[in-house]
Order: sequence, then structure tokens, then C-alpha cells
Amino acid sequence: MDVDIPEVKAELTAMFERYEKALTTNDVETLDELFKNAPYTIRYGAAENLYGYLEIAAFRAARPSVGLQRTLEKPVITTFGRDFGTASTLFRRTPGRLGRQMQTWVRFPEGWRVVAAHVSIIDEPKA
Amino acid sequence: MDVDIPEVKAELTAMFERYEKALTTNDVETLDELFKNAPYTIRYGAAENLYGYLEIAAFRAARPSVGLQRTLEKPVITTFGRDFGTASTLFRRTPGRLGRQMQTWVRFPEGWRVVAAHVSIIDEPKA
Repeated sequence: MDVDIPEVKAELTAMFERYEKALTTNDVETLDELFKNAPYTIRYGAAENLYGYLEIAAFRAARPSVGLQRTLEKPVITTFGRDFGTASTLFRRTPGRLGRQMQTWVRFPEGWRVVAAHVSIIDEPKA
Repeated sequence: MDVDIPEVKAELTAMFERYEKALTTNDVETLDELFKNAPYTIRYGAAENLYGYLEIAAFRAARPSVGLQRTLEKPVITTFGRDFGTASTLFRRTPGRLGRQMQTWVRFPEGWRVVAAHVSIIDEPKA
């Protein structure tokens, strides 16, 4: 199991950055494209639990399109072999609150896709 | 990319169940064993963000050992090829609150290990 093969890590980093741009500009078409179109795709969001691509796409379509900007902290992208990887990052949008986003990506014939994602917002840790 | 090859899915399901038993019985040795011993392993917990195996193991060692029981809802385990998979589940421990746990597993020479995990607790969704 080769971890962080440079060209694979570069590919997945580019996908992660593409996703971030789509998220903060509310580019719903790209957000939909980057999630695997399959019933097994799961997204646990800040306040909702979405099972399957159709639930995720419905959520995106109804999503508010303002106040989306955020700054990332400590993003870490790790790849395993040539077809699998994770992307984790903290983010800030609201003072005193800290967001966490974690994604699992898989390379399919159509390209890299998110198969599982989890976003949560917590109070700023005391540490 | 073969999704959910039956014997691979059975293997990962067994690992998921082993993790759950270790978690609810505070079997720290097994919890430590099942996370990949690597600096890139990440665990976003209910109130903490742990980067690297050492931070995760330190958190486990200091963890309260009471009130750990919980019930799972809608667990979904999905495998991709023979060496990758995700495990997602909702859980309940406190009335009115809903937990979400998502793990990414990779098969290494030493066995299946969690390389990324994210746990969060939200108010019960209204839906």
C-alpha cells in the first residue's frame, strides 16, 4: 500500500480545491458532479444526515447561496494506492465556532468522486 | 472498481463490529490497534481534533470509562476493491441528541486499520 504517491496526491489535492471553490461559490452543478452518483453515497452535514446521491442532490438544490465563504485550517490530503484517498480540514465561518470536514474519495472510471463525507460544527476547543 | 465484494464487505463488517465492542467496553488496547499507527491518521471527535496516531492514543488513554453504551442506527459499510472501505453509522446515547460516526478503513500488511474518523453529535433533526 503506497501512501501519498506524489502524482496521485497532486490529483486529489486538485479535486479538493475544485470542491472548495464550488462550495464557496455555490456551484451546485460541480458539487453534484463530485459526489458519487450511487445509493451508497453518504453525507452527514452540519444538521442533516443524507443517505444516497438523490438526498444529497436535493439538499444542494435547496441550499442557501449566501454566507458560504470560509477559511480553511490544517487541511490534510492523504492517498492510499492510486484510487483512494481522504481529505480532512478544519474551517471557520462563524466566530467562536470551528467546522470540521472529512471526505473519502475514490477514483472511478468517470473520475475521482466523494463516496462519504461528514461535516460538523463545534464550539472552539479550549486547548 | 468493484464495490461491495461480499467477502471483503464481510471482513470490514467484522472489523466495524470489533471496533464497536471495544468502544463500548473501553478496550483501549483494541481501539489503539484498530487505528493506523501513522502521523497522517486523523480523528475528529465530538469536541476535539486529533492529528496523528500519538494524539489519538493519548486521548484514548485519558477517556472516561463510564457511560459508553450506545445504540446504532442505519449503519452502512461499503467496500471499494479489496483494500478500502467506509463505515458510517448514527448512534444514540443521550435523549434528544444524535451521534454520527464515519470511518475510512484501509487494509495494510498488518490488517484493516482506520486512517480517518469523524464523530459528531447534533440535536435531533426535525424531519
